[in-house]
Amino acid sequence: MKTLKVHLDKKAVLSHEIRIGRSIRDRMILLIAKNHPAPLYAVVTDSNVNRLYGRTLADAMIQAGLNTSVLEIPAGESAKNMATVLSLATRLLEQGADRQTLLIALGGGVVGDLTGFLAAIFMRQVGYIQLPTTLVGQVDSAVGGKTAVDLPQGKNLLGAFHQPRAVFADLQFLDTLPEREFVNGLAEIIKYGIIEDEKLFGLLENNMDAVLRRDPALLLKIVETCCRIKKSIVEIDEREQGLRRILNFGHTLGHALEAESGYRLSHGEGVALGMIAAANLSSALGYLAADEAGRIGRLVAQAGLPTRIDADLRPEAVLGRLKADKKKKDGALHFVLVKKIGMPFVNGGIGDDKIGSVLEGMRA
Amino acid sequence: MKTLKVHLDKKAVLSHEIRIGRSIRDRMILLIAKNHPAPLYAVVTDSNVNRLYGRTLADAMIQAGLNTSVLEIPAGESAKNMATVLSLATRLLEQGADRQTLLIALGGGVVGDLTGFLAAIFMRQVGYIQLPTTLVGQVDSAVGGKTAVDLPQGKNLLGAFHQPRAVFADLQFLDTLPEREFVNGLAEIIKYGIIEDEKLFGLLENNMDAVLRRDPALLLKIVETCCRIKKSIVEIDEREQGLRRILNFGHTLGHALEAESGYRLSHGEGVALGMIAAANLSSALGYLAADEAGRIGRLVAQAGLPTRIDADLRPEAVLGRLKADKKKKDGALHFVLVKKIGMPFVNGGIGDDKIGSVLEGMRA
Repeated sequence: MKTLKVHLDKKAVLSHEIRIGRSIRDRMILLIAKNHPAPLYAVVTDSNVNRLYGRTLADAMIQAGLNTSVLEIPAGESAKNMATVLSLATRLLEQGADRQTLLIALGGGVVGDLTGFLAAIFMRQVGYIQLPTTLVGQVDSAVGGKTAVDLPQGKNLLGAFHQPRAVFADLQFLDTLPEREFVNGLAEIIKYGIIEDEKLFGLLENNMDAVLRRDPALLLKIVETCCRIKKSIVEIDEREQGLRRILNFGHTLGHALEAESGYRLSHGEGVALGMIAAANLSSALGYLAADEAGRIGRLVAQAGLPTRIDADLRPEAVLGRLKADKKKKDGALHFVLVKKIGMPFVNGGIGDDKIGSVLEGMRA
Repeated sequence: MKTLKVHLDKKAVLSHEIRIGRSIRDRMILLIAKNHPAPLYAVVTDSNVNRLYGRTLADAMIQAGLNTSVLEIPAGESAKNMATVLSLATRLLEQGADRQTLLIALGGGVVGDLTGFLAAIFMRQVGYIQLPTTLVGQVDSAVGGKTAVDLPQGKNLLGAFHQPRAVFADLQFLDTLPEREFVNGLAEIIKYGIIEDEKLFGLLENNMDAVLRRDPALLLKIVETCCRIKKSIVEIDEREQGLRRILNFGHTLGHALEAESGYRLSHGEGVALGMIAAANLSSALGYLAADEAGRIGRLVAQAGLPTRIDADLRPEAVLGRLKADKKKKDGALHFVLVKKIGMPFVNGGIGDDKIGSVLEGMRA
């Protein structure tokens, strides 16, 4: 048997910038023209965002001399599938897209994940820019290069790690964000406080009214802090082999609750309940002081997020989903717990009875 | 505007081994068990190859203690699409596949490209092993990490660069390869001679009878030589930004002829005609001596590949397809020409009239 070695270890250049500000559109277009020249820019956006911002962004880009088109997809998680990817690929080809085409994801998590995935596979990869319009997008999903589409069997089952060429978080988009969408984003922001930054947590405790009024200076500070936390974690563990798992704080139970509610609970609402459950579990297992768990519950409530589980969501059904999840993912559930606010750790084996009794205790 | 830099430049470890031999199955299974442990091995194969080799391979792997399943897809290029990828993903999930699952591509180019692409996107990437069963697979498509599926608009339009964990070329598979499939592979082998290795070209000239008899020692030498050439090119230019383009020698016109024939011409037959056209073009433009172009034509004929273009394939129609291709790919056609056998170069702008008259001169 002959053996040949294919030597392919190499340096991948994936570094890029996140820019955060208010009403930065025109400066952003200048930066795109200067740093990311392309023969065609395809703005992928959903029907809601397109109505508010898609056409005006494309017009401004065209005025700046950039060859720009807009590709609209239906709004909502149900469009995050391969059929939408194929439809977008067809439209790109009709517009003469090639390997130099740059995609621009203008929207929330669905648009960002889907556009990033399309960019990962179109003609074996093109570049893309994240232009998140939701609070969740700006503090979480647009940063880190995770892209995916859903399968009927579950969310994000097909995807790729594909870093964007740049991220632009324009806080102006938040002005038109529906209240429930804004509050969804607060769940992820509270999460950053819990897993990494007690100062951020305290800032939220002391200023939740101003946050809910969407105070511009405060939001700028918060979005920047969250992006800084997330990017620092991703820099160390891009592919979620270790540290990045702490970003799943509240998400393991959150996803199960969200799914078990038939998605009546939003992602942020599921995460809010999941964070309280993880805090209560940390406390029940003796890791977290009870008053710290109490602070977490109170901050979630202050943000207008749910703290009690609907009576019709049975703990056994939620546990069943956790086990199905465990089978799907690496054969092990990585439960993120906390020792104190700002100090998370990953715990593999927690008994069903413990989880069940925490869920039972949270029922309305 | 605040700016954060995401520092993600890093070393990617993509090196791997190609092993070539005859009847190496049992040694291969030992190597897989030792070097690529996985909780589940999913052998993806097509209906033809499965009948001959799929079940026996899986049985041998199971006997060796490896948890192995077989996923069959229909034979032929028409299965190389996203619907097949989705169907395979569903079957993987039903079998409890997770991020540690290893796919094994057992088949020709279609199975290899499709399985590699599925591996690139399933749960944001799993590993895969190439086990090519055709001559084209062993000398070309299984090496280099190009994976893709077709769209109705064209071949390989969605894909990824995803290097296999290992490649095993077992020459025993070639014993059962239909004559036309075997000859297809010879077109790629002749290509390696033309673009890189006059010695290989001479070896083929002097031993084509033995090659066509599938002489084991000769085939081992040839497959090894071709893998060595391809891997050396891929090592320098994995993403086809320069050097790797020479691997497209004969393919630009070959693809156009193949498509214009409604795929009556096989890939190898298209490439054979494309290589002769590229040689004649090189000669007509004064780069290549006429007798060298003659050698290329004669070797193609010796291999049993076509040297004349069917009278019903109109040169204007073929030129039209070239232009459509140019629009789709980078906006420029990279025509690979030769100065002598073993010395290729890439030429951007060749007049339609020159190409047309070469095609005209090749019509039956």
